[in-house]
Amino acid sequence: MRKVMRHGRTALSREELGSLDAHWRAANYLAVGQIYLMSNALLKEPLRPEHIKPRLLGHWGTSPGLNLVHTHLNRVIKARDLSALCIWGPGHGGPAVLANSWLEGTYSETYPDVSRDAVGMNRLFRQFSFPGGVPSHVAPETPGSIHEGGELGYSLAHAYGAALDNPELVVACVIGDGEAETGPLAASWHSNKLLDPVHDGAVLPVLHLNGYKIANPTVLARLPRGELDELLRGYGHEPLHVAGDEPAEVHRAMAAAMDLALDRIAAIQRDARAGRTTERPRWPMIVLRTPKGWTGPARVDGEPVEGTWRSHQVPLSGVRDNPEHLAQLEQWLRSYRPDELFDEDGRPRPQVLAAVPDGDRRLGATPHANGGLLLRDLPVAPLERFAVPVDKPGETLHEPTRVLGDLIAQIMRDTAGRRDFRLVGPDETASNRLQAVYGATGKAWQAEVLPTDEHLARDGRVMEILSEHCCQGWLEGYLLTGRHGLFSCYEAFVHIVDSMVGQHVKWLRTSRQLPWRAPVASLNYLLTSHVWRQDHNGFSHQDPGFVDLVLNKSPEVVRVYLPPDTNTLLSVADHVLRSRDYVNVVVAGKQPCFDWLSLDEARAHCARGAGAWDWAGTETGERAPDVVLACAGDVPTQEVLAAAGLLRRHLPDLVVRVVNVVDMTRLMPQEEHPHGMPDFEYDALFTTDKPVIFAYHGYPWLVHRLAYRRTGHANLHVRGYREFGTTTTPFDMVVRNDLDRYRLVMDVVDRVPGLGVRAVAVRQAMADARTRHHAWVREHGVDMPEVADWSWAG
Amino acid sequence: MRKVMRHGRTALSREELGSLDAHWRAANYLAVGQIYLMSNALLKEPLRPEHIKPRLLGHWGTSPGLNLVHTHLNRVIKARDLSALCIWGPGHGGPAVLANSWLEGTYSETYPDVSRDAVGMNRLFRQFSFPGGVPSHVAPETPGSIHEGGELGYSLAHAYGAALDNPELVVACVIGDGEAETGPLAASWHSNKLLDPVHDGAVLPVLHLNGYKIANPTVLARLPRGELDELLRGYGHEPLHVAGDEPAEVHRAMAAAMDLALDRIAAIQRDARAGRTTERPRWPMIVLRTPKGWTGPARVDGEPVEGTWRSHQVPLSGVRDNPEHLAQLEQWLRSYRPDELFDEDGRPRPQVLAAVPDGDRRLGATPHANGGLLLRDLPVAPLERFAVPVDKPGETLHEPTRVLGDLIAQIMRDTAGRRDFRLVGPDETASNRLQAVYGATGKAWQAEVLPTDEHLARDGRVMEILSEHCCQGWLEGYLLTGRHGLFSCYEAFVHIVDSMVGQHVKWLRTSRQLPWRAPVASLNYLLTSHVWRQDHNGFSHQDPGFVDLVLNKSPEVVRVYLPPDTNTLLSVADHVLRSRDYVNVVVAGKQPCFDWLSLDEARAHCARGAGAWDWAGTETGERAPDVVLACAGDVPTQEVLAAAGLLRRHLPDLVVRVVNVVDMTRLMPQEEHPHGMPDFEYDALFTTDKPVIFAYHGYPWLVHRLAYRRTGHANLHVRGYREFGTTTTPFDMVVRNDLDRYRLVMDVVDRVPGLGVRAVAVRQAMADARTRHHAWVREHGVDMPEVADWSWAG
Repeated sequence: MRKVMRHGRTALSREELGSLDAHWRAANYLAVGQIYLMSNALLKEPLRPEHIKPRLLGHWGTSPGLNLVHTHLNRVIKARDLSALCIWGPGHGGPAVLANSWLEGTYSETYPDVSRDAVGMNRLFRQFSFPGGVPSHVAPETPGSIHEGGELGYSLAHAYGAALDNPELVVACVIGDGEAETGPLAASWHSNKLLDPVHDGAVLPVLHLNGYKIANPTVLARLPRGELDELLRGYGHEPLHVAGDEPAEVHRAMAAAMDLALDRIAAIQRDARAGRTTERPRWPMIVLRTPKGWTGPARVDGEPVEGTWRSHQVPLSGVRDNPEHLAQLEQWLRSYRPDELFDEDGRPRPQVLAAVPDGDRRLGATPHANGGLLLRDLPVAPLERFAVPVDKPGETLHEPTRVLGDLIAQIMRDTAGRRDFRLVGPDETASNRLQAVYGATGKAWQAEVLPTDEHLARDGRVMEILSEHCCQGWLEGYLLTGRHGLFSCYEAFVHIVDSMVGQHVKWLRTSRQLPWRAPVASLNYLLTSHVWRQDHNGFSHQDPGFVDLVLNKSPEVVRVYLPPDTNTLLSVADHVLRSRDYVNVVVAGKQPCFDWLSLDEARAHCARGAGAWDWAGTETGERAPDVVLACAGDVPTQEVLAAAGLLRRHLPDLVVRVVNVVDMTRLMPQEEHPHGMPDFEYDALFTTDKPVIFAYHGYPWLVHRLAYRRTGHANLHVRGYREFGTTTTPFDMVVRNDLDRYRLVMDVVDRVPGLGVRAVAVRQAMADARTRHHAWVREHGVDMPEVADWSWAG
Repeated sequence: MRKVMRHGRTALSREELGSLDAHWRAANYLAVGQIYLMSNALLKEPLRPEHIKPRLLGHWGTSPGLNLVHTHLNRVIKARDLSALCIWGPGHGGPAVLANSWLEGTYSETYPDVSRDAVGMNRLFRQFSFPGGVPSHVAPETPGSIHEGGELGYSLAHAYGAALDNPELVVACVIGDGEAETGPLAASWHSNKLLDPVHDGAVLPVLHLNGYKIANPTVLARLPRGELDELLRGYGHEPLHVAGDEPAEVHRAMAAAMDLALDRIAAIQRDARAGRTTERPRWPMIVLRTPKGWTGPARVDGEPVEGTWRSHQVPLSGVRDNPEHLAQLEQWLRSYRPDELFDEDGRPRPQVLAAVPDGDRRLGATPHANGGLLLRDLPVAPLERFAVPVDKPGETLHEPTRVLGDLIAQIMRDTAGRRDFRLVGPDETASNRLQAVYGATGKAWQAEVLPTDEHLARDGRVMEILSEHCCQGWLEGYLLTGRHGLFSCYEAFVHIVDSMVGQHVKWLRTSRQLPWRAPVASLNYLLTSHVWRQDHNGFSHQDPGFVDLVLNKSPEVVRVYLPPDTNTLLSVADHVLRSRDYVNVVVAGKQPCFDWLSLDEARAHCARGAGAWDWAGTETGERAPDVVLACAGDVPTQEVLAAAGLLRRHLPDLVVRVVNVVDMTRLMPQEEHPHGMPDFEYDALFTTDKPVIFAYHGYPWLVHRLAYRRTGHANLHVRGYREFGTTTTPFDMVVRNDLDRYRLVMDVVDRVPGLGVRAVAVRQAMADARTRHHAWVREHGVDMPEVADWSWAG
């Protein structure tokens, strides 16, 4: 081990040092106990096999490091009366965070049966990673946490999200050296280029180099010190090093580094807030280099364990059956001198708790980690101010997202003082036509500014960086600490955060079941620049599958909307921005789109989630429909309406019903999603026996997956995107995928029985139109006039 | 602009400078022409509106920078007779790479109708981003490319993948400063910690700081020079800077930087290969700082364009209708002095081509970019050497991936000389129990080594870093340059690369349609540590949805296998490792699993992809089955067999058929996937009218999505994972998700008519067993003996 570095002038008294070390030992003891013990928590008896859990599960390796950080955060929080939150990147070190929460009392306050005494300690141990107990990772069940840490990669982005618009908050963030190898984490370091020292809080990264992952050394732990420092300075930080394996020395160094870091943060904020400087600061960070599995067994069965990857999970295995391991475990547990740490009744002794802060200052009790407690309703202005006038359907065109931009801009204005709403997106806010928002706030930016730049602002609340991972991570951190936001993203590239949204849904799903977790604002996606309009980019930008991914997740949490025009987009946006504890996916185009519904009609239609558009069909009420034309999504809706128009002209006697679906989960059975339609309603809308030609925005089989249990399912015929993509005209895209109006009419003719000879001619005319299109577009490079100039009204 | 830096002693002659500049101007001219012109390619007439494309699509901003790099790569390739490949990170700058390919002649050799003359130039222009033409990005259609560059983030990982085991190859990699903000790119810098200067080639990153993305400044372009250098040195590179906006000066600086970089690379390789040093080298890289849209219109409509984000796509819009823009375009095109660059017939003049290399040395012609040309069959040893003996089903247990590890180890041995096989994975090779491979080769590692480390080797061919993005990117680059590999990954976290695999499938789908692209080895995933056995980690590690994602993609490319035991895994592995142009997803457990099939049986079963296991059912041939118990995946197979055993005992008269599905796509209709079963075969296997209880490894509705068109679909009842996860026992996991044997028996009883009163008792017994389990597991923390000790034979 390298020599311990000392920073600043912090000199711990003997008493302080004793207290910090006692707390750290207590936390270590409790972490080991959780992994191993079913009973005999206080070791009042010699350890016997029946005290040991039958299955040994959990992660010891990272735990002593997390305990060290928690112990020292306690000290500075108490000493400075700091408002702090900690993100535990190595969240698989659940035993450590649970131990600290129990020590400080928040665990017992949250779960009174796990009291801060011998009975509770036994329960704390037994429940850990035990059937019916608590998960082995930091999880929603863990007080003080907003971060799971099982997947790895998102801790630093979460920390920045939490710090935004929380000027008094310090967010410590422990980053494991394994996690530091991931892409999302590597990208997140540059978040400091967008953090405003005036309006935002501070992030204090603690890079924990314990040297090993599950089975390998870590890259950052094996860089020469100078190279690592260059890297961290290149990330915009000033690293403070703490390294060692002798506890007292490390405590002294850690206390000094924490003080120095917090002094610097305070100075940076003071200078910025007093207007003395607008230079981007070089924020401090701590590099903590301690052995993996520190204080655990040095060797097991002759192999080195402490300080190696072998301590990653459970250093001593088979303890029930291996007397030597059992003895080694007892020796290990007793090495923390539990008698000095806990009284007869298992309560932590005063020395252990001397540095623990009080009340909400405790890391397990901060309301920032239970953000719903701090959440205020978002002021969403009346939609009437933004809605487009629609006297008749299909007479006017608007760019839906551009109009939405006006609404978002107003929200930005209405939250200018509160600062609890952020718009995030990877460099695409303007490309997605939301740029009205720049009239209300700028893009957060602390780096160099040139005269040619536009809309950059140190205090801006639009966050843009070319990293979907950062956008997602920031927003998750922001929402879980009690604020609101919207993520606008190219539809195809939101797949970049598939895994992150999966984790967030899991978090919300579990949180909803915990009465003490207050609901938080939903995570809202606006997916635009979608599959049908990738004129500049083509195949690589065409992927509508995020909806499929999201609909695999817990139905309590996920919602999917495909508003077909501008006013429906406004209505959907209004709904999702006010909602709680959901992941809402809204897919909407940015290109000019016909206005179909007035605001009132849009509201009514969105409230139903799916409904017949009587004005578009030919039902008179006298006869049941011969066919249902259904649609979901803006482009499919246009094609279905065009097909309905063609049918009206060519087959005037056909009774056509047009159904538009805004909320995809309405198609699901009632038992499988809270929004699922009862069968009688589905049957009434789609019929039980008539052909349903369904034009869907994405992969067609999704509609079958949602509706396979419906009575009329065998009559359901779905068109959608089938990976036939390239750079071409908008109409050529729908033709290539058989979603075009002509194909839909052919589908009707093919499926409605008894249309007679007239239908043969209609079918041929449609096929001819497709051939005509093919020749035209290849010659002229644009869509043929009968398509380009089409309008419903016209 | 900063002052131009000079490196080394390269002094271009006047002639060389003239030739380089002529080539660059020609490429710029051709790039602009592709974006704007339908005809009049050589500007023989004054530009008129009808010469202009009706839709102006494409990306100009990055093109002059790409052209500069290509021009200078030409020079050094020719001067040094270098074997080189270039990854164009900003692949949306398609016009640039197409222009260069046309200039060097490879384009016309690949597509003879686009000849290197006036006729061909007109075609080159017209076809670009035009219906029926070529995509706007670098794409499979582009000679010399293995990288699309639309999504951004993967260029550097692709470059490293291409360089591995290609000791003579230099892989240049242009990284846009937008792309550099992504997580995957940020993580990829550390790939140099695994690159062996002895056995691998070199990667030369060219970080192109043109300052802006679509709408924003880039982070790296706005760092102070010193901070940027610290970052790049921290990544392990020695940056060489080239900056300016005066062409001649930039040419001189670029030529010098290229020479210096290549000299250093040569010296590093020489020293390492002569054994003079084993220190990790500090590889050179180039930082190129030139204006975005350089040489394009300086201002348009009064706004600055060159050097700003406004030049990202099409700097002059509405050119057909705006005479001023038309004039500006003509002036812009003529500024390159096309008459000096092309002769009367449109052929590039000798000066333009002076620095262009010959034959396969041309970047568009290198066989490394058409890797199938270099591909050799992988030596897969006879499976008999690894198969486990199975006399009777269900009598023995093996860990399937551990046995697979023996096969992979043998492949490593058999490719030790050829070095054309790599195993990649995020720190999980041993965790996934493939560690036998370390007996044959080590883990690639060039950083510091400590005595406690194991299996690290400078020349190792196992690649582990905690970044699924890097693993995926390396493997893609490795495969597309004509080698073989396997990606072993935790099932849940493969979602991290969802978007990457989507792009790779698109690449393969298009490549398969291009006769000149030779087939490459398939991208093979081994997904293990799967949803049912996350004893240490729980909910965050439980996600079987990658299969769903992959099955949304082009059916020509995607394949999904769920081998139920060790020998079937061997058979599947043998198949996928020999296959071409697919993405194969293999899901297999690492935990001890009953052996059901002998090797011969496994081969026959895998060849069918799905089939009845007669020994497991109770059919005698006299009566049709009363019920079909189907399964896919190791854990569901075990539960179905246990259910079959319970039925045999409790309802001996019931005729049960047990069907196991290895290849999920067999469930699809024949018309929708090449592996899809004909209806008659499906009907014969699953019946058309009997209840089918299907226990599936993942989300249950996937089976419905695949089989919804089958006759018997209404009788299909699927059990699978429904997001009821946590850290608990293996059997508790299946119970929570209703996939357990008792529930399956209850499903049978509920669905088979006419079972009478006996069935009521059986149903109650099953429900009781579930209750018993619930109590047992919560008390003891392990599965109850009747489950834990169960075996088919027993």
